[in-house]
Amino acid sequence: MELHQVLHMKGGDDISSYAKNSSFPKTVATKSRHILEGSIKELCRGINMKDLLYGKCWIRMAELGCGSGSNTLTTIKSFIEILDKEFYHNNNLNSSRVEVDDATALPSVEILLNDLVSNDFNLIFKSLPKFYQQLEKLGLRRLPGSCFVSAVPGSFYGRLFPDNSIHFFHSSQSLHWLSQVPAKLMTENGLSLNKGNVHIGNTSPPAVHDAYLEQFKSDFSTFLRRRSIEMASPGRMFFILCSDTPGSVGFRYLDQTLNDMVKEGIIEEKALDGFNIPMYEPTMEEMRWIIEEEGSFEVNQIETIRWNKDDDVKNMDQDPVREMYVRVTRAVFGSIIESHFGVGIMDDLFRRLAKNISECVENFIWIQDSLAVSLVKKD
Amino acid sequence: MELHQVLHMKGGDDISSYAKNSSFPKTVATKSRHILEGSIKELCRGINMKDLLYGKCWIRMAELGCGSGSNTLTTIKSFIEILDKEFYHNNNLNSSRVEVDDATALPSVEILLNDLVSNDFNLIFKSLPKFYQQLEKLGLRRLPGSCFVSAVPGSFYGRLFPDNSIHFFHSSQSLHWLSQVPAKLMTENGLSLNKGNVHIGNTSPPAVHDAYLEQFKSDFSTFLRRRSIEMASPGRMFFILCSDTPGSVGFRYLDQTLNDMVKEGIIEEKALDGFNIPMYEPTMEEMRWIIEEEGSFEVNQIETIRWNKDDDVKNMDQDPVREMYVRVTRAVFGSIIESHFGVGIMDDLFRRLAKNISECVENFIWIQDSLAVSLVKKD
Repeated sequence: MELHQVLHMKGGDDISSYAKNSSFPKTVATKSRHILEGSIKELCRGINMKDLLYGKCWIRMAELGCGSGSNTLTTIKSFIEILDKEFYHNNNLNSSRVEVDDATALPSVEILLNDLVSNDFNLIFKSLPKFYQQLEKLGLRRLPGSCFVSAVPGSFYGRLFPDNSIHFFHSSQSLHWLSQVPAKLMTENGLSLNKGNVHIGNTSPPAVHDAYLEQFKSDFSTFLRRRSIEMASPGRMFFILCSDTPGSVGFRYLDQTLNDMVKEGIIEEKALDGFNIPMYEPTMEEMRWIIEEEGSFEVNQIETIRWNKDDDVKNMDQDPVREMYVRVTRAVFGSIIESHFGVGIMDDLFRRLAKNISECVENFIWIQDSLAVSLVKKD
Repeated sequence: MELHQVLHMKGGDDISSYAKNSSFPKTVATKSRHILEGSIKELCRGINMKDLLYGKCWIRMAELGCGSGSNTLTTIKSFIEILDKEFYHNNNLNSSRVEVDDATALPSVEILLNDLVSNDFNLIFKSLPKFYQQLEKLGLRRLPGSCFVSAVPGSFYGRLFPDNSIHFFHSSQSLHWLSQVPAKLMTENGLSLNKGNVHIGNTSPPAVHDAYLEQFKSDFSTFLRRRSIEMASPGRMFFILCSDTPGSVGFRYLDQTLNDMVKEGIIEEKALDGFNIPMYEPTMEEMRWIIEEEGSFEVNQIETIRWNKDDDVKNMDQDPVREMYVRVTRAVFGSIIESHFGVGIMDDLFRRLAKNISECVENFIWIQDSLAVSLVKKD
């Protein structure tokens, strides 16, 4: 089965859902808001305000890999907040500025939510009437007729929008997902290069890292090329994705747990050999290098944002943190683990994972770095 | 509960679903295709081809009240077929025409599917990858990058799109649905004007027709006003909706069946008195009058398209036709009947309806007129 058919965060809103285990992207978004703000402000300064105010054009913002949790609409609210502030309150606009003395003169905004076709868009749509009311209550948007939310299903490694049609691309914690498991993790004879690991682990040979990096470079270059065709002039892009985090817990305990289950005959060795998680967390240097090599965009700003467990669970003792780690791992990686190993092992696997972690108190360092990146299209 | 929360065609794809009982809109669409073709051709002739071919602009088509059955994507296919034929094969283009010798030079098309937030958009999205493949096989569209389908949830009596942003509006068999049951069907003392009828029936006083027409005029004028703001220049609109059909079976047997159930004490009289179906089927004269009064559009073409049972069931004897009538009535009106009277009466009601119809062989005339209307925005 292809990746786009199985990859999705755990749906619904119970304690095991992604919706209830997505404080990480929210915290990182808060810590990097200054870069998002800068990026939107520069977008606004490049736009001919007269065109906007007389309805000749409207602003189109695409949210790539939007998911269906509460973070989806929160991001849109932030975008509109910053945009409106820039248009409505800020007096330092460029020379083509005209007086904006009425909220009805705000430019219309079309928000295009994108995710894979298996995403639960119906769930988002049902929350839209309430969302529009909230915007209005906040004094951000008068309705009807100034903010329009739509959905565009498909992979962001393919084409999603017409040429020159999007002013602002945004993506949060999605672009580290690859389009496929790197083909080069298997030799021509069908042997695994990455025995005993589900990702780049301590015992992985260098060729495993190279295969992942090569796949990421190819995917991310495709992503940039397609977005540059779709980007209107002026246009900006801002995204956050996971970055390599030395010393963190990573997939160490998941590796250990799956290997235990192989030893006990619960999982076949061949099944573990054939399982590799299709994501890559680039370093800042790799990110800069790939963007430069691809050539469509310039880096406007790039920063490492560190998240650690203390950000979200300041007053917890150690055990709830570990429980949360297990829940997050299941909410994020559960769908691809289940599609590979079958639903039968899932509860057992995550019970064992919890136990393994609670036995390793000393080594449990749960931090995760992200890169927050602001890009501008080259002329 | 508000209408947009309960009104939807019967989902799924079993024998009772709307998907399996929607041959009527398909047949009417086929019979009116010449008007749709004319409308799209005139749109194309008004567009500056140079702008399109050099990627400065793209064509946006909105499908209003799209539903989630097979007809949804069939309409889009027709639209693209006609559009591509006009751009690619026809040599009689206007003076700004440039040579189109390559399918990659076709203008990009953005298709915006609209329906109420309760519509099953996920179902449509899951069929999109196959739909894109079909387009490509038909030689209509090269992928990636020339046809983009998205969804815009919301009522078409509200605003749906930015100002001046849609080139072509299309709607099939949706615009006869009102935004609400006409308020004037009840007197100030809460008495029903329309006792014993669920719509405009033989025993309804003239005030009932007036209340329905007034609501339709108000709703349809709102619809036209909002679309005229959203329509780009040049722009066109084509829609099909049900029209008053003298002598047809209409709601006669549904009225009879519900009244029988009141007499037997299965349904409360008050419940029947308070139930009126929120749709209105205008005559051609009323349609012309409302469009003229509202003033934003001119009628380019308007035709009555007659559907009768023989169109779809040529080789059937009488009984299957009646069975189909009962199934269609349930698929289309089931959700609002159920939300008013409760799920408990549904099977009984439709069994009785079938029986009543089979006892009235002589009077059973199942025809339905539609209006096919092509509009152009006034300067």
